[in-house]
Amino acid sequence: MYTESIVLTEKNKLKIVDQTLLPGQLKYIKINGLEDSIEAIKKLKIRGAPAIGVMAAYTLYIIANNLKSFSRNRFFEELKFAGIELKNSRPTAVNLEWAIERINQVISDNPNKIQSDIAKLLRKEALEIHSEDRDSCHQIGINGLEIVPEKANIVTHCNTGSLATGGWGTALGIIYAAAEKNISLHVYVNETRPLGQGARLTFWELNQAGIPCTLIADSMAASLMAESKINLVLFGADRIAKNGDVANKIGSYNLAVAANYHKIPCYSAAPVSTFDFDMNCGSDIPIEKREPDEILDIYNYKKGNSDLDVYNPAFDITPAELLSGIITEKGIIKQPLKINISKLINHN
Amino acid sequence: MYTESIVLTEKNKLKIVDQTLLPGQLKYIKINGLEDSIEAIKKLKIRGAPAIGVMAAYTLYIIANNLKSFSRNRFFEELKFAGIELKNSRPTAVNLEWAIERINQVISDNPNKIQSDIAKLLRKEALEIHSEDRDSCHQIGINGLEIVPEKANIVTHCNTGSLATGGWGTALGIIYAAAEKNISLHVYVNETRPLGQGARLTFWELNQAGIPCTLIADSMAASLMAESKINLVLFGADRIAKNGDVANKIGSYNLAVAANYHKIPCYSAAPVSTFDFDMNCGSDIPIEKREPDEILDIYNYKKGNSDLDVYNPAFDITPAELLSGIITEKGIIKQPLKINISKLINHN
Repeated sequence: MYTESIVLTEKNKLKIVDQTLLPGQLKYIKINGLEDSIEAIKKLKIRGAPAIGVMAAYTLYIIANNLKSFSRNRFFEELKFAGIELKNSRPTAVNLEWAIERINQVISDNPNKIQSDIAKLLRKEALEIHSEDRDSCHQIGINGLEIVPEKANIVTHCNTGSLATGGWGTALGIIYAAAEKNISLHVYVNETRPLGQGARLTFWELNQAGIPCTLIADSMAASLMAESKINLVLFGADRIAKNGDVANKIGSYNLAVAANYHKIPCYSAAPVSTFDFDMNCGSDIPIEKREPDEILDIYNYKKGNSDLDVYNPAFDITPAELLSGIITEKGIIKQPLKINISKLINHN
Repeated sequence: MYTESIVLTEKNKLKIVDQTLLPGQLKYIKINGLEDSIEAIKKLKIRGAPAIGVMAAYTLYIIANNLKSFSRNRFFEELKFAGIELKNSRPTAVNLEWAIERINQVISDNPNKIQSDIAKLLRKEALEIHSEDRDSCHQIGINGLEIVPEKANIVTHCNTGSLATGGWGTALGIIYAAAEKNISLHVYVNETRPLGQGARLTFWELNQAGIPCTLIADSMAASLMAESKINLVLFGADRIAKNGDVANKIGSYNLAVAANYHKIPCYSAAPVSTFDFDMNCGSDIPIEKREPDEILDIYNYKKGNSDLDVYNPAFDITPAELLSGIITEKGIIKQPLKINISKLINHN
């Protein structure tokens, strides 16, 4: 039903879908090491918090495998360096940090193993991270069915599907799960300026899957809500603070405000790995600022015109109070989020 | 301080700025008759409700002037036909209808005049419509000063400046007036998807005028509001119903909802000619639907792919209750809009 965005081949080669080529072309590219991986993340050949976490884990295995016949010093140093570089490549998505820490844990738990054995352990751990993410996505989809109305008319933002995760997706996973149950649904896809992940990826994924969908500009969702054409808002999360504030693709907050005004339920869907208990609230979460040209590019201004002031944050913060709940693989966290987050996540 | 978008030359030739070439090139093109005029409107070489009203009036003069040596029958028939075609070229902007009706009134008031004299009268009327629009814009700017805070941080949508009107603009006219008074201000410009009138035109106009401004994607305004970086929302209007509901560029409603949530004043600015008392409320106003390719074009889908469902209304309705007021050349209409609209417009 969906396209695998990250594949470790039988010969232990890492391949990912180059998402910058979609929807024109579905092409897998090889990730041979750190440089390829960082470039893929920075140029958004791969994006989506869970997906970059999975790919980072595989990248560390690939590096370990490439270096297994090198000296122990070089082996560990390069792995350490790679972990830091990968972490810094996208500061907002916490799953990246989390996946790298799991890999680092395997390394520090096995100080006496030889390099080739460590490489094997990292392969196992990366496959496990991937497999867990696939399972989490599946369970998020199933758990989310509870909040999908009959005759669902859903607005979604950015891409939270198979291209954003190691499985069928988070918010989009719920839509896939609902489609599998033959629930009547229609999805309005926010194009998601400036980079068009909604238009290029989600709209493509849903059309591939045969799920009825309509592409809209981001500013149109509110007027569809005013016309009573929407009964659910679903998006993902790049990082969730302890109090339930959600950092997600820029425009999510705008959508949550519109949903609130029109009294439409609004949910974020994400695996538990997206929670960051070091962040007390949304304002603690670092927000990546990106290049002006991502917005300017389509408008016929001279390239690199530094006289033009353009504001281009990649994410925004939706405060907990605007969410009806957060859908995780462990269940739906309902209001009051702050209390229920600590209950669900600490007791499971 | 601003660029004249519509010019009748000394030799009675009509020239307009081709706005589709901005910001790359500031180029005037000639409008020789009906066909050029309709094409300019449909392809958005000229847009903005007041500007297309002014241009339509000039177009009818140009047609009359071209046909003044033809038979009376042909002269009147072609003018009648042209009026209907022009009216239908953009169904939402009421100023177009209004300007054409003023020209038609001159024709029907002078049944016994010869064609060349009628052409002269139409020239006079078109110049008057233009001059009145210039004065209206100026007065809207002056009237609007009342609601511009010290240290104004304004979000605006679409283009409501000299490119959209016969003068310095409506919402943007207020910004020009504030800049003339040396009020400290910063303008956040919504790019205004899908056609980018904010990015291509407003951002260009403001940079030309040396007014501090920042370009943002439409979905970013809400998060700027959450960060207390905005204290005023200003946009124009394409048609205003009797009860104060405002039809304006798609995305205006989204902005008004966000302003409401953040308790930020939100005003529409428009000349009195924008009111349509035949419309009891916003839902009576016809909303133009435009081609899917306007949204799809930047996303590398195959052209003319009719399997893809895209929703692309050119306008939305902001209900009166979301507006702090409507700024006109006759004064600021405050809440309750419905009552105050009829007071201001009937008693002046």
